[in-house]
Amino acid sequence: MSLQSLSDLFVHELRDVLDAEKRILKALPKMAKAASSEDLKAAFEEHREETEKQVERLETIFGQLGKPVRAKKCLAMTGIIEESTELMKEDADEQVMDAALIGAAQKVEHYEIATYGTLATYAKQLGMDDAAALLEETLEEEKAADEKLSELAGEINLEAQDVADE
Amino acid sequence: MSLQSLSDLFVHELRDVLDAEKRILKALPKMAKAASSEDLKAAFEEHREETEKQVERLETIFGQLGKPVRAKKCLAMTGIIEESTELMKEDADEQVMDAALIGAAQKVEHYEIATYGTLATYAKQLGMDDAAALLEETLEEEKAADEKLSELAGEINLEAQDVADE
Repeated sequence: MSLQSLSDLFVHELRDVLDAEKRILKALPKMAKAASSEDLKAAFEEHREETEKQVERLETIFGQLGKPVRAKKCLAMTGIIEESTELMKEDADEQVMDAALIGAAQKVEHYEIATYGTLATYAKQLGMDDAAALLEETLEEEKAADEKLSELAGEINLEAQDVADE
Repeated sequence: MSLQSLSDLFVHELRDVLDAEKRILKALPKMAKAASSEDLKAAFEEHREETEKQVERLETIFGQLGKPVRAKKCLAMTGIIEESTELMKEDADEQVMDAALIGAAQKVEHYEIATYGTLATYAKQLGMDDAAALLEETLEEEKAADEKLSELAGEINLEAQDVADE
């Protein structure tokens, strides 16, 4: 049986999110390049650095479990990133593209908020307090990144609206 | 230019989420069938009914915009549901499968939270107050569904943990 215990499910989900993070690491520079707003470019670049630390935390947890650091293709993040790749191909006004990129990035963040929330709960129930603390640290970073994008959206969407009004 | 204004982006995103909702409508009965907990089965069934109302709200907004009700394949939700389909094929203990299904459903909810949050912001900025109110109603339902799943997770993960301890 592949998922006999909560511990099996925890490892299954860790492998999923490790793959997701690696895909995000590759996608963020492309999103930064597609962005016109300097603030948005900077937000994507900052989050890429944060993501590297998040990958290190996952590696630490694999170590605590005595398991090899192994990723398992995350079909969900594959789809989420595929959608943002399609979006970047659209012929769009610069500010509208910035607004669209923020929306796409918030979908990435929310996938991670759901996943790290679940992982932190599993870790606590398995009595892995150190792992739970690492996962909650990442969870808070993802929530903060989402809020920062919402703030940027306020400014950028207004600019996109002005474009339509011109 | 396909995305010349915030209004174009709003319609683009409405078409995306309409497709996502239709995929969710098909997935929820399968998830209910795969669940063992009666409470979890009931939660999935209830959310399916809620999703039908959410689709109707989207149709109303298309009407307000004078646009045809047209969906555009949502690659992100395709991936998220593909992942849960793979999960349901795993050979798993019943309670561990229930815990896994909750995690999968929370990923669906968070995709919707991100998307409806973005859509409600666009609607407000476009001065479409009625549409914004409908989108916020759905957003609150998605948040409530996510919280309900977190509560169920508390009970079900503990049962899954007991399985591992036996």
